[in-house]
Amino acid sequence: MQRYFLANHDFEDERVVIKGDDAHHIIRVMRMVAGDEVICCNEKDESALCTIEDVSSGDVVLNVTKWLDERKELPVSVTIANGLPKGDKLELIIQKGTELGAAKFIPFIAGRSIVKWDEKKGKKKLERWQKIAKEAAEQSHRTKCPVVTEPLTVQKLIEEAKNYDRIIVAYEEEAKAGESANLYKSLSSLTKGQSVLVVIGPEGGLTEKEVQLLKENGSVICGFGPRILRTETASMYVLAAVSYQTELME
Amino acid sequence: MQRYFLANHDFEDERVVIKGDDAHHIIRVMRMVAGDEVICCNEKDESALCTIEDVSSGDVVLNVTKWLDERKELPVSVTIANGLPKGDKLELIIQKGTELGAAKFIPFIAGRSIVKWDEKKGKKKLERWQKIAKEAAEQSHRTKCPVVTEPLTVQKLIEEAKNYDRIIVAYEEEAKAGESANLYKSLSSLTKGQSVLVVIGPEGGLTEKEVQLLKENGSVICGFGPRILRTETASMYVLAAVSYQTELME
Repeated sequence: MQRYFLANHDFEDERVVIKGDDAHHIIRVMRMVAGDEVICCNEKDESALCTIEDVSSGDVVLNVTKWLDERKELPVSVTIANGLPKGDKLELIIQKGTELGAAKFIPFIAGRSIVKWDEKKGKKKLERWQKIAKEAAEQSHRTKCPVVTEPLTVQKLIEEAKNYDRIIVAYEEEAKAGESANLYKSLSSLTKGQSVLVVIGPEGGLTEKEVQLLKENGSVICGFGPRILRTETASMYVLAAVSYQTELME
Repeated sequence: MQRYFLANHDFEDERVVIKGDDAHHIIRVMRMVAGDEVICCNEKDESALCTIEDVSSGDVVLNVTKWLDERKELPVSVTIANGLPKGDKLELIIQKGTELGAAKFIPFIAGRSIVKWDEKKGKKKLERWQKIAKEAAEQSHRTKCPVVTEPLTVQKLIEEAKNYDRIIVAYEEEAKAGESANLYKSLSSLTKGQSVLVVIGPEGGLTEKEVQLLKENGSVICGFGPRILRTETASMYVLAAVSYQTELME
């Protein structure tokens, strides 16, 4: 069933009003009419089965038929901070990461990021990333649409990291050196509701200096298995591991 | 360092001879000369640091400098059987699956596969898939290059499944129904050297009949977490889970 991510203020008790692009999508693209049903999600990870009451004004007015108990979100909130990669790789990272349950994506301008961030073109890119997250969240039946932020500098990322319960850094030199215990140690000690920031380098990886800086700020440096993963694969690995640990094992 | 996957018969004691495409790559593309080093892998998951002795004949003659103990392969052998998906999604499945440690890929013609398999064009496609596996295996520093087979019918896949210690079927209806224990139960009871076949439907999933048939042949039906994963994401999930379970937890 079609799913829409709405603002809290779109809900008023058991009544929902959808405006703008989503209203256009319901009326013009899906050609829905009064009596049809959709799922509406608010910003509190809650979702409701709603029945369309009226579309005549161009807005869509709905009534909540039933609040759902979907439990589609990871028990811990995982943010993927990925060094800005080449080409459209971040699109794949956002699409797959959303399916796999990420709460937020923070691209950052790493020392080895080859792409330059252009403020002007950047706005369009950011809109596109956010759209990919929204579509993937709908398709994977999530109740939360991940946020994609503007790329941060490393310094800003370190500042941001202070807001998290745990900082995990994927570092391929650790993987090469056979480090294999840190990720499990870190994930298995998480408790429900905690927040995790996962920092992943661009192609070429994080610089030693970046790793050092992250270490000094309380990060756990982890290998993600003995094979060398491309930058876009590392986030898939860690999100699947978080799901396996917190949703399937426990 | 550049890595080549060779046949066992390319090795003779401590001497290796590389011919054909790989020789061309070393001499013409990499422009290597006597004294340069590469890593050579045989078909027994063994790898050796080798020094080039001679390239003058068009073949590359090397001496083994040192046998390596890389341990890059998953402790269990995982084969991904994916229902033939649309477009070039199987390329992504093979590339990411190889990075994540898959031993073999078996595409199969599922009831809901929309793509028709064309024997004639198929040969080229298969070559392309094998090339993607080889490149990903090199890049991720594996010691084994996964095999990609021609697409099988469902009937042939069921026959093939009998050769495996464990058959895991990803079924989104189980995920929707909240099934969450089977994958962990199945993976945590694997022992080193066992073989696992993971069966994943195409877009639209497996049919009920296919699931029934797989069940009758000893499969474990599993949900891969509560979110609905696209066909190409399911293999990434399960391979990361196998790595986490068998390489990081144990």
